[in-house]
Amino acid sequence: MIVLGIDVGGTSIKGAAINDKGQVLDRFSLRVNKSDSASKTIGSLADIINEFVKDHDYKEKISGIGIGVPGIVDFDKGNVIHSPNLPTWEGFNIKEFLQKKTNLPVILNNDANVAAFGESIFGSGKNYNNVIMLTLGTGVGGGIILNKKIFDGNLHQGAELGHMVIRVNGKKCGCGRRGCLEAYASATALIRETKKAMKLHPESLLNHTALENDKVDARTAFLAAKQNDKTAIQVVKNYVQDLSEGILNFCNIFRPEIIVLSGGVANEGEYLFSMIREYLKKHNYGMKHAPYVDIQKASLGYDSGIVGAACLALFK
Amino acid sequence: MIVLGIDVGGTSIKGAAINDKGQVLDRFSLRVNKSDSASKTIGSLADIINEFVKDHDYKEKISGIGIGVPGIVDFDKGNVIHSPNLPTWEGFNIKEFLQKKTNLPVILNNDANVAAFGESIFGSGKNYNNVIMLTLGTGVGGGIILNKKIFDGNLHQGAELGHMVIRVNGKKCGCGRRGCLEAYASATALIRETKKAMKLHPESLLNHTALENDKVDARTAFLAAKQNDKTAIQVVKNYVQDLSEGILNFCNIFRPEIIVLSGGVANEGEYLFSMIREYLKKHNYGMKHAPYVDIQKASLGYDSGIVGAACLALFK
Repeated sequence: MIVLGIDVGGTSIKGAAINDKGQVLDRFSLRVNKSDSASKTIGSLADIINEFVKDHDYKEKISGIGIGVPGIVDFDKGNVIHSPNLPTWEGFNIKEFLQKKTNLPVILNNDANVAAFGESIFGSGKNYNNVIMLTLGTGVGGGIILNKKIFDGNLHQGAELGHMVIRVNGKKCGCGRRGCLEAYASATALIRETKKAMKLHPESLLNHTALENDKVDARTAFLAAKQNDKTAIQVVKNYVQDLSEGILNFCNIFRPEIIVLSGGVANEGEYLFSMIREYLKKHNYGMKHAPYVDIQKASLGYDSGIVGAACLALFK
Repeated sequence: MIVLGIDVGGTSIKGAAINDKGQVLDRFSLRVNKSDSASKTIGSLADIINEFVKDHDYKEKISGIGIGVPGIVDFDKGNVIHSPNLPTWEGFNIKEFLQKKTNLPVILNNDANVAAFGESIFGSGKNYNNVIMLTLGTGVGGGIILNKKIFDGNLHQGAELGHMVIRVNGKKCGCGRRGCLEAYASATALIRETKKAMKLHPESLLNHTALENDKVDARTAFLAAKQNDKTAIQVVKNYVQDLSEGILNFCNIFRPEIIVLSGGVANEGEYLFSMIREYLKKHNYGMKHAPYVDIQKASLGYDSGIVGAACLALFK
């Protein structure tokens, strides 16, 4: 069986034909103009899909489309209820529209849920039944897999893991609340704290590293910390603490067997992961009684989204 | 059908015969000595159950025993994995022991889960499918009901709602972490903050109220706040904020239809509930898109535990 997996982002749509082993066969993509209407963008997507199907020998084997969309998705109805990144898509029935245009069954879900689903089937979580995935990017996205199924709460409107407050009255979050995990564990937050520390410690290696590279990004603090710069180490420590406290909160609620991290920050590898592991070990509820939670980088990398979307159609 | 519902606490065990309408027919109880072995205490419980059954005309109709136990419960095996309140019970197979002694099928679960289950079937949550219950007492207990079933995470070790950190590096919690919801929303925390405010404002009505009543308890701040004392109002406001932030975190993860509050603090009634409602309305994620969440006092009161335990046996 072959299906199409599609990952919708705020600036582009990526898609691919994927087989039932989770292997990416061929890809397609499309730029997104946020101000365009949903029918215009999804109309173009349908054209590209139809062209793509026609061009490939396995066209007869393509049995459906899975699609991950940012925002709160009502996948029974097939539309997006709320999407800060794609406001023109709100209320538009993606499923009906795409099914009509492509003559293929369409199944959709939230993009973060879908990425977690992909990792749980073909990625770092494949040997586990209960997986939580956090994407540490501009924001913090989260997906929960329980018994190999997407868990998204009542009305499919839960699992907003980035919007759990870990510091009441803390930093303002894009969602309107203050102190959300997103406001501390996103790459954006790490950059904010890096810049703050640079200003406070202009003599630090952290500051020099940023000047040398002519930019501050989510890697800056890690680069300087790995060279033993005190200021940078403190920035990284604070970041790891907030991220780990968020993870522990999810552990106390769900007891996942593995936490999968993706997004740019997750590329920091063992340096980051060993610090998180140590923190989790020290602060887990129930201590010796609580089950061990593994923590790994998303092994599908940037393909978690398309592979997960494909899984929607493969394992519906 | 009639079953026995049993609620195990740190100082006493309460039980009752309950019919399939959730009505309490007759009660029994037993004091608990924490230092006694599990076999001694549960042996005494079995004797009382056998006596109780023999004494009632409906003995032939009693079809099983449901039991709620504090701590992390492995209900497949039938034992308690971790119980800070009843450490001697850890590892003891309650289910097997009680079944053998009483000749009745036994089903057990965590006490907070069980209370939430009771409220969702016969209490404030009976018209809803998705219910979260928080018990605001010495600690903060929590239970999650999704689609009318207990949700307790992987290995039945999740749903530790009181141990979600809402203030990183905050007040020390009994569980070992810092800043847990329990450290801010429990009656214990409210009393701590009341005492702190009394010391800072000896001139306040709050301080006078406490002196007049010759004690400080979870009601003190509410009593003075209702008489417009500024100091007390601030204590109550802070309490409501922390509790509501915790509730909102659960809403963003589970989207329950109702939050049920129990424990002494919940007796403050509309004065408390209207403040929480206002806070939730203002700070809900997704704002206008998010579904409305009801918030009510536990209508079964102190019987949530025994009725919920009975429900384990009634609706297994």
